Amino acid sequence: MSMSAPTLAIVGATGAVGSVMIEIINQRSEVPWGEIRLIASARSAGKKITVRGQERTVVELAPEAFDGVDIAMFDVPDEVSKEWAPVAVEHGAIAVDNSGAFRMDPGVPLVVPEVNSDRVHDRPKGIVANPNCTTLSMMAALGALHREFGLRELVVASYQAASGAGQQGVDRLYAELSAVAGKDVGVRAGDIAEALEAAGLPAESPFPAPLVLNVVPWAGSVKEHGWSSEELKVRNESRKILGIPDLKVSVTCVRVPVVTTHALAIHAVFSGPVTVASAREVLDGQQTVVLRDDPAAGQWPTPAGVVGGDPTYIGRIRQALDFPDTLDFFVCGDNLRKGAALNTYEIAETLAS
Amino acid sequence: MSMSAPTLAIVGATGAVGSVMIEIINQRSEVPWGEIRLIASARSAGKKITVRGQERTVVELAPEAFDGVDIAMFDVPDEVSKEWAPVAVEHGAIAVDNSGAFRMDPGVPLVVPEVNSDRVHDRPKGIVANPNCTTLSMMAALGALHREFGLRELVVASYQAASGAGQQGVDRLYAELSAVAGKDVGVRAGDIAEALEAAGLPAESPFPAPLVLNVVPWAGSVKEHGWSSEELKVRNESRKILGIPDLKVSVTCVRVPVVTTHALAIHAVFSGPVTVASAREVLDGQQTVVLRDDPAAGQWPTPAGVVGGDPTYIGRIRQALDFPDTLDFFVCGDNLRKGAALNTYEIAETLAS
Repeated sequence: MSMSAPTLAIVGATGAVGSVMIEIINQRSEVPWGEIRLIASARSAGKKITVRGQERTVVELAPEAFDGVDIAMFDVPDEVSKEWAPVAVEHGAIAVDNSGAFRMDPGVPLVVPEVNSDRVHDRPKGIVANPNCTTLSMMAALGALHREFGLRELVVASYQAASGAGQQGVDRLYAELSAVAGKDVGVRAGDIAEALEAAGLPAESPFPAPLVLNVVPWAGSVKEHGWSSEELKVRNESRKILGIPDLKVSVTCVRVPVVTTHALAIHAVFSGPVTVASAREVLDGQQTVVLRDDPAAGQWPTPAGVVGGDPTYIGRIRQALDFPDTLDFFVCGDNLRKGAALNTYEIAETLAS
Repeated sequence: MSMSAPTLAIVGATGAVGSVMIEIINQRSEVPWGEIRLIASARSAGKKITVRGQERTVVELAPEAFDGVDIAMFDVPDEVSKEWAPVAVEHGAIAVDNSGAFRMDPGVPLVVPEVNSDRVHDRPKGIVANPNCTTLSMMAALGALHREFGLRELVVASYQAASGAGQQGVDRLYAELSAVAGKDVGVRAGDIAEALEAAGLPAESPFPAPLVLNVVPWAGSVKEHGWSSEELKVRNESRKILGIPDLKVSVTCVRVPVVTTHALAIHAVFSGPVTVASAREVLDGQQTVVLRDDPAAGQWPTPAGVVGGDPTYIGRIRQALDFPDTLDFFVCGDNLRKGAALNTYEIAETLAS
């Protein structure tokens, strides 16, 4: 394909992640895209959105929408990607997909540019997959540590933001917040549920339990042996991205009342000795990792403190007291930026360069 | 001491935990206490509180306040316990202390009745210590699993409630909640801090960062090598209570915007094979442990779902996919009840019986 001024398509351009993709395209000028085509469902077709100073009209998802497209970024439900990414490829485009449809497909590379950008070139199906947002929240930091120290085991507990469940998740959290504000709830089981009901909130929610003033140890769908789909994604995608098929991983995914930015408490075992100083030195050298690690000065990453940022923020780095070759640490990453739109766009940039 | 109708004293009777102690004494009639003496600082002396149907006047903390006291429960700051628990003992009382002053003292047993009630009788200093609330949130469940399967390693990530920082922590969380309710915050770093400032909240807070719509990976004071005092307490107290001096433990303590009830994501390695079914059978047999573990039916414990309850609630029990002899699970426990007042009172009941 001619990549002099390649044509970029955004499928799902009007969604939560699609909007962030456009924001990022406007912020980054590295790639001189020729045409930028905005594609969405019939419902959104005809909308006008300004990208890089030029007003563009959203076109409906259809085979001909991919004519002349070099790279098509998809942020749509799994079943839509499953049907339409191959259509984009038939029309000559490379599909960069942020759904779960192709991530574990052996014929589809799963890419985090800082970790395995070389993999984008081996794409027999013409598709490159973008990892799940929870996995992505830690990959830049883990990839760097793995290159230096050889990762062997991961025990992860997540603190996942409401926007991981889309705009409806954010809306629900704000609605729950308003329903309990100024009320003395949370002392008795059922208080919060009653306050939400009294405020007229619908019983069905993007979350399986009240999220305000609560944490919910569940994300995704029910898989075998009590695991959630989200927990298995973090395990399987981490193995594939890092290229460690036998990486030992245990993950517990928990939703917390945070709007945006996932956080993870990580217990990482390496194949040899690793000190806090040597880990800091490695992480300091990473363009997309920011160290915030000085407890005495109140320095550590928090979701509210880093939201909107592109890097992976890491702090609380401690040498495990009782486990050899092991570090415990805490990372935060914006699940809508690096966790979704940014990494997808970085893959597109890698393909275009 | 005559334990026919022993005299019980509550030191710190007007505090957050002291009030729950009185609530529990009113709910439980197992021990026919003779006198129940309420002791507090000069500021609260003279207050009248009804206990077991009888109005009692709070007396000021002084040596003579312990005359005739058989068992004195303390919920006061470390330095107050350090000074006054020995005074109670000199006056013939057994001190049951919920501060951090004596927990790791080799001459002071650290007791969770379900786990090591026998230890109360070996108290050379006349003092029995009550564990930290975060440690207590998991002990009933871990103790039962340890008896059956032999615990070897623990990796823990906490989701700790605001009331762990006392009533001021609860008040702060509610104030922050009202400050952000109805506002579109949390999209940009600093949004929440600005909303709190705009609402006129004082800059200094019981928490080292905004807690509403956020999680904060810090609890307690700064200890060596980047560890927090709370994390070291969970490690050291777990070893002492379970009687496993070489138990391997890594803990990351994180404060979450929940009013009351601590939650913990736990990765536990045992000394032999353990199945989910065998673990459930053991836990099912515990009077003070409640299983909530059916993801397909939306059953797992959450802080808001169990707050106010006495048991330890456990769910999300999974056999680790990549680690032998290992279970991953999630527990919730009310940090003001079993985590503080209830366990302290259960120790007093054990001593009186």
